[in-house]
Amino acid sequence: MKVAVLAGGLGGSRFARALAETIDPEQLTIVGNVGDDVEIFGLHVSPDLDTILYTLTGRLDEERGWGRKDETWNALGEAGRLAADTWFQLGDRDIGLHLVRTEKLRDGEPLSRVTRDLAAAFGLVPALLPATDDRLRTWLETPAGDFPFQEWFVGRQHRDEVDAVRFEGAEDARPAPGVLEALAGADLIAIAPSNPFVSIGPILAVAGIREALEHRSAPAVAVSPLIAGKAVRGPADRMLARLAGGTGPKQVTDCYKGLIDALVVDKADADEEAGIRTIVTRTLMNDADTRRRLADAVLETAAALR
Amino acid sequence: MKVAVLAGGLGGSRFARALAETIDPEQLTIVGNVGDDVEIFGLHVSPDLDTILYTLTGRLDEERGWGRKDETWNALGEAGRLAADTWFQLGDRDIGLHLVRTEKLRDGEPLSRVTRDLAAAFGLVPALLPATDDRLRTWLETPAGDFPFQEWFVGRQHRDEVDAVRFEGAEDARPAPGVLEALAGADLIAIAPSNPFVSIGPILAVAGIREALEHRSAPAVAVSPLIAGKAVRGPADRMLARLAGGTGPKQVTDCYKGLIDALVVDKADADEEAGIRTIVTRTLMNDADTRRRLADAVLETAAALR
Repeated sequence: MKVAVLAGGLGGSRFARALAETIDPEQLTIVGNVGDDVEIFGLHVSPDLDTILYTLTGRLDEERGWGRKDETWNALGEAGRLAADTWFQLGDRDIGLHLVRTEKLRDGEPLSRVTRDLAAAFGLVPALLPATDDRLRTWLETPAGDFPFQEWFVGRQHRDEVDAVRFEGAEDARPAPGVLEALAGADLIAIAPSNPFVSIGPILAVAGIREALEHRSAPAVAVSPLIAGKAVRGPADRMLARLAGGTGPKQVTDCYKGLIDALVVDKADADEEAGIRTIVTRTLMNDADTRRRLADAVLETAAALR
Repeated sequence: MKVAVLAGGLGGSRFARALAETIDPEQLTIVGNVGDDVEIFGLHVSPDLDTILYTLTGRLDEERGWGRKDETWNALGEAGRLAADTWFQLGDRDIGLHLVRTEKLRDGEPLSRVTRDLAAAFGLVPALLPATDDRLRTWLETPAGDFPFQEWFVGRQHRDEVDAVRFEGAEDARPAPGVLEALAGADLIAIAPSNPFVSIGPILAVAGIREALEHRSAPAVAVSPLIAGKAVRGPADRMLARLAGGTGPKQVTDCYKGLIDALVVDKADADEEAGIRTIVTRTLMNDADTRRRLADAVLETAAALR
């Protein structure tokens, strides 16, 4: 059973972990969002790839939901004493990874190869691929102006309503090596319970990836990021309400029109019309059992669809 | 009493501190060596400027003789787990400073302005100036090959004998803003008990600085880095023996021919011929009293020479 999963954000990393714990992890390929990559003090930070890497190798600070556990904060603390702008927090261990990544990128290595080597050094078993090696950046258009993703999400704590999302560089972005092969060879394409606009959207903004999903031979199953119309974390519900006209399964399905065959929704949303084949389970992942249950539901859905 | 001091290495930072504790620190200008600057993981590290900055603001790890006290080592530890090459140790707080410096340099700010701002943020009272804003790098020619300074000093633990020292970029290097003014306006020009070849040599390799010393109007006094023919720390004695033919005061004087008016030597070297006006005192600085005694000896020498 080969699975390719599109993932971004904390929900994406947790679902990727759920799959890695349920199937043979060597058969799993995780395609990660890079639209929220950001340069901080000249360091190339890939928050979504790192959250996946840290989550699946037991290094994530689970309570905070980002960054490393047992982290220290001395480098940025010092930088903050020396220069004003430390709006984006980076721990010391995290910086160690960014230093290595940044140097390799500056030496001309593509992000996919750098990510592969970092993942290997951390003992990650599933393949972790950036959606693209090309520069792709998510921008939010809001009443207060246009902001790059992290400036809106972290710097402004996503307080501005979003009128539109755009992906700088998307028109020229090619799928990273291995992405199309993973999608073509998969027995199941899964879309994690991530924010459809800013976590999965940037992946699907890569035309080659979107086309691969449109012309898929394997079933594609998405997991709704909403429970009773609310996002577990982050602004997905507010964005769905404003950009898709509601916070039900139907609006999630609309985000993936033509790209999925089924939607997994939480029990709390069982009575809502999804406009597509729907599977109901509990979708909140807060321990190994709940992760397993969700992964099983997705895998069974795919089996039924084949 | 205005003093300009040329300084590099740990001896240089300790002597700069001695002067700052003895005269009005606002009247002190420290011209620091940048020949041992190095890029580590893309970070611009200025070890001598930083040792001065840390020493004079109470941040140096005195026991280790470099880097910050109360330091943590998580960023480089992690980088070492991810990539092989962490031969040059950088602590987390230290990295915080390097991140800020590197970003400012990349934005086009000259090192002198960056250094001034870092010093101001740390509350350093004396002026700290890099010898030059231009790229100048110390290379060692040894029987094992030619090495940039840090590769020889740290990477190879200065085990190779040195046949020659050269300064890449010296021919085009101009004194940093303020350096010539400080030398011209000083009542005393002091040369710290630093390694003449690799700590003071790169400063004097800047033609404008060497000429300013040659045409000085104020007395210039050097402190010998040797005690009984031995360096307190580092390879100054081995280098003097091989490159200057001996480890006495005479060989130190020879390193500064035409540039100084007097040499301060340790009691242990009192009987050696220095070939220049000599002042004898105890030169080892291991507490406030010994620092003060050495600074006083240098200041009194200058007063006698005027």
